[in-house]
Amino acid sequence: MHRYRTHTCGALSEADIGTDVRLAGWCNRIRDHGGVLFIDLRDHYGTTQVVIDPDSPAFAQAEKLRSEWVVRVDGPVRRRPSGTENADMATGHIELYAAEIEVLGPAAELPMPVAGEQDYPEEIRLKYRFLDLRRERLHNNIILRSRVIDSLRTRMKGQGFTEFQTPILTASSPEGARDYLVPSRVHPGKFYALPQAPQQFKQLIMVAGFDRYFQIAPCFRDEDARADRSPGEFYQLDIEMSFVTQDDVFDTVEPVLRGIFEEFGKGRPVTQTFTRIPYARSMLLYGNDKPDLRNPLLIADVSEHFSDEAVTFKAFKTVIGNGGVVRAIPAPGAASQPRSFFDKLNDWARGEGSAGLGYVVLDADETGAPVGKGPIAKFIPAEVLARICKAAKVGPGDAVFFAADVEAKAARIAGLARTRIGRELKLVDEDRFELCWIVDFPMYEWNEDDKKVDFSHNPFSMPQGGLEALETQDPLTINAFQYDIVCNGIELSSGAIRNHRPDVMRKAFAIAGYDEAVLEERFGGMYRAFQYGAPPHGGIAPGVDRIVMLLAGEENLREIVLFPMNQRCEDLLMGAPAPATPKQLRELHLRSTAAPAAEPAPGTAPMASPHGA
Amino acid sequence: MHRYRTHTCGALSEADIGTDVRLAGWCNRIRDHGGVLFIDLRDHYGTTQVVIDPDSPAFAQAEKLRSEWVVRVDGPVRRRPSGTENADMATGHIELYAAEIEVLGPAAELPMPVAGEQDYPEEIRLKYRFLDLRRERLHNNIILRSRVIDSLRTRMKGQGFTEFQTPILTASSPEGARDYLVPSRVHPGKFYALPQAPQQFKQLIMVAGFDRYFQIAPCFRDEDARADRSPGEFYQLDIEMSFVTQDDVFDTVEPVLRGIFEEFGKGRPVTQTFTRIPYARSMLLYGNDKPDLRNPLLIADVSEHFSDEAVTFKAFKTVIGNGGVVRAIPAPGAASQPRSFFDKLNDWARGEGSAGLGYVVLDADETGAPVGKGPIAKFIPAEVLARICKAAKVGPGDAVFFAADVEAKAARIAGLARTRIGRELKLVDEDRFELCWIVDFPMYEWNEDDKKVDFSHNPFSMPQGGLEALETQDPLTINAFQYDIVCNGIELSSGAIRNHRPDVMRKAFAIAGYDEAVLEERFGGMYRAFQYGAPPHGGIAPGVDRIVMLLAGEENLREIVLFPMNQRCEDLLMGAPAPATPKQLRELHLRSTAAPAAEPAPGTAPMASPHGA
Repeated sequence: MHRYRTHTCGALSEADIGTDVRLAGWCNRIRDHGGVLFIDLRDHYGTTQVVIDPDSPAFAQAEKLRSEWVVRVDGPVRRRPSGTENADMATGHIELYAAEIEVLGPAAELPMPVAGEQDYPEEIRLKYRFLDLRRERLHNNIILRSRVIDSLRTRMKGQGFTEFQTPILTASSPEGARDYLVPSRVHPGKFYALPQAPQQFKQLIMVAGFDRYFQIAPCFRDEDARADRSPGEFYQLDIEMSFVTQDDVFDTVEPVLRGIFEEFGKGRPVTQTFTRIPYARSMLLYGNDKPDLRNPLLIADVSEHFSDEAVTFKAFKTVIGNGGVVRAIPAPGAASQPRSFFDKLNDWARGEGSAGLGYVVLDADETGAPVGKGPIAKFIPAEVLARICKAAKVGPGDAVFFAADVEAKAARIAGLARTRIGRELKLVDEDRFELCWIVDFPMYEWNEDDKKVDFSHNPFSMPQGGLEALETQDPLTINAFQYDIVCNGIELSSGAIRNHRPDVMRKAFAIAGYDEAVLEERFGGMYRAFQYGAPPHGGIAPGVDRIVMLLAGEENLREIVLFPMNQRCEDLLMGAPAPATPKQLRELHLRSTAAPAAEPAPGTAPMASPHGA
Repeated sequence: MHRYRTHTCGALSEADIGTDVRLAGWCNRIRDHGGVLFIDLRDHYGTTQVVIDPDSPAFAQAEKLRSEWVVRVDGPVRRRPSGTENADMATGHIELYAAEIEVLGPAAELPMPVAGEQDYPEEIRLKYRFLDLRRERLHNNIILRSRVIDSLRTRMKGQGFTEFQTPILTASSPEGARDYLVPSRVHPGKFYALPQAPQQFKQLIMVAGFDRYFQIAPCFRDEDARADRSPGEFYQLDIEMSFVTQDDVFDTVEPVLRGIFEEFGKGRPVTQTFTRIPYARSMLLYGNDKPDLRNPLLIADVSEHFSDEAVTFKAFKTVIGNGGVVRAIPAPGAASQPRSFFDKLNDWARGEGSAGLGYVVLDADETGAPVGKGPIAKFIPAEVLARICKAAKVGPGDAVFFAADVEAKAARIAGLARTRIGRELKLVDEDRFELCWIVDFPMYEWNEDDKKVDFSHNPFSMPQGGLEALETQDPLTINAFQYDIVCNGIELSSGAIRNHRPDVMRKAFAIAGYDEAVLEERFGGMYRAFQYGAPPHGGIAPGVDRIVMLLAGEENLREIVLFPMNQRCEDLLMGAPAPATPKQLRELHLRSTAAPAAEPAPGTAPMASPHGA
């Protein structure tokens, strides 16, 4: 018989009744039913009910057991007495009669229970993460995460991609966030940086001719914590491919993501054909570039209607006169909502920095044509109202809200209102995964502060139309082969067809006012490589953590990461960060400008170095 | 037709003759045969011969092409003229007649050629790594590496293991090497450390109940560079499992490693049943704890024979009298070697810090019994020589060398001599993979400097005999459940059954003179976890880079790592490490004690932040 177990705690069934077995696991719950002890013995694979009655030689030992003790139990498998079966458990028809119990790992009194779903403060959960992780929901989330990553790998390999490891100790590469630096001991005053993303490396892998790269890549950004981004590190499915167009990238990524959401989505419907929404259209219809398509509402521009001479609403006319726009957000069925519904939305919009949302509640006249009610209805003649209703796709029984401002602000507030109205009117079907591409991002934007043209997003994306467009078009009309993939209103990744031509790159940078020295100094490795035969290439890097969060239905990374840091970037379990010793600082040629690091406590004897794994 | 290619450069065959295709790739070699141009067009998948004659509209374009330009070529597939086929190439029976050529990525003059196998200085190779990686051998090595890692994952999953990601920004954990530190911006004066290995985390994963963990884990050690260890980072197949004995770990790891060496070993034989060699026996027979079993020579202890009164060789008698030993290294067939063979070995041994190797060359007398020749033969009577020959398994026609010293030094020099003699006599079959376990490592050793008992290896291994052994045995007689896996004389990994009991741990540390405070302070996360129900567990972590090196037949990590640093810990391609900006140092609360970091060059305009992948 094996030293610790013949079966796992999820393995026994009626077929084993009558055999002598050995199990090992944690005491999940211990109950005393009239002198007979019942222990739910738990391991990674399941739970088995263990029974010990006072006749058992193990009874005295069993009486000492407490929650979360690790034990080995020997004995015969028995059929559960009729009426006590648990059909919900794989092992629910049997129990193990304990003839012998060995304590393998006792447990001190627990700072938090493992059985049950009570909420505990983050500090306790992270300090005792090894207990937190034993809880069913978290345990399942972590296993889900592993399975998702494994499936991503399988799907990528199935499309002919090879996984490569790129360096983690590397050079600072301006990706828009703050680098983590690693001081060099060998080179005084110099630092490595942890990669914010393996962006340059994956492009170099293409230049090296490997054709199709992917990596479940750890990325590091020294940003302040957010619920959906770990302080410190996160993982992305990093992808790059050569000799491809934007369509090829989409054709590659769509089946991977659709497959992942279908495989792990527990039957929730998943978009079959990902819509491609031009950036400008997304900003109009959804008010942002990461639309939640589960929300059926579409924003409409109604500026022309409010410009109509017949309309006498001055506030909107002034906005339009100053170059602004009016956007309409439909609120289907909202005519039956109480006045407070409209007031609350207005208050919320003012809190968001808007002048407020105008609105019209729609009734019908005797012919069925819409009749407006509400504060601004009287300024809009019936004929114009009919056109507005048509544009916003509303009619009697509905309401329609208006956001008027300069375009960017109107779009933003309209987008937020769309989300809020959709949610309040319960129009959003939460139980589905709606994926889409946002395409045709502008290459440049007007920088009002510096009165110059600047890159909108990624300066290394290929401009649509290539060198010719750069040389002949108004820069502000040029789009890039750049795209985002969005799921349920969450941006999973940006991506692009890269600019692999040094000549096009120099021109693109010149338009934004940067000379070649900027390329050489800040992106030298990649820029140099492009001089020696670079293939056209492009890629994307969907965030693994965000995908797992969507699938698990969690809203905090803490729930899907094994050992997360807290919001203050501390690892409470291992005690990081911690002061360095003076010797370490000396070796790294550094002095801390903070309070001096403490010397190790005098009682600490130096110790032989353990090694190996 | 696709924008860049209808086929890859390895895809076309006789079946495609007559069809119009489009290929894209690098111009590997360009030859001019009497006005007709031949281009070997290369991509990741293979090479296709492209032909352009002066009648082709693409001829003028083709004449401009140079090595490593990236081009698209359109045209019909033709059968190669009879006699010009290349049976060694997958595409060797066809060629592509170029009707149209588009330059996708021109190349400047190359600092090193891609075609061919010339050796180039490391500095050029690493600075232009994207060119180096295009070379066939390196390209194949990197793909081998990816395939090995993929196969390791498949094999581990096949045995019920799940891959988890452990933190990379974590706490310093004394593993015997120097940590890389990462200064915290949020916590002045404090630092994260990059993991030397995920040792504590994988044990915490076991305490959390996940049962079977693995990870292709990046590890970081700030050690000076060695050929077989990257400066900076390396990868290990990190494994941990619960409720297991040492045999279970062996039964898990053996099929994985045997399978990997068989899958990628190109037919070279692989050990089927891994021998388990106790540490003490390995030190005796092989002179070290990482024996190369491809070498058939076995060292023997012959101290008792040299102690024999009949032997008159004073030097060895003195060594033995002072507590030393004499070890015999057989040299089969060496009697026919010239005197210089023996002199060279002796010189080499003196260079290694030994007093020299005694030796006896063996002839036979008329009865066939061994007769000794050489400098020390006259001190050894025939009867004792016969016993020595029996112990060392040598006879007439052979020779036998002797190393005499205190045991550790004699073992070491005997081991080195064994390697050298085996190689010089060509007794080592290089084309095989010989794997073995070294077991029963001593838990403690005598620290002569401090006159105290200290840990030999890993203080967290479970002592054989557990608490009872610690309480009753002489510590220096206690072995640990600790083991090494060795292949062809290279240690792939240490591993152990862990000490998961805080009571046993406190006792084990007390014996070495450390109190509980050491455990609390230096291993707090893990030590605390063990108080709350820890399962018995153990593991190992074979080095991925070393496995790939063995399989690729390479002796330098540079040949199997995509973007390695040089021996001075520099990334010549990306320019790391590099000075930090004063702003970065301020944010990190650090001052460099090296020469001050330069401010960014004044010509460098600030730039919009690119983002996303």
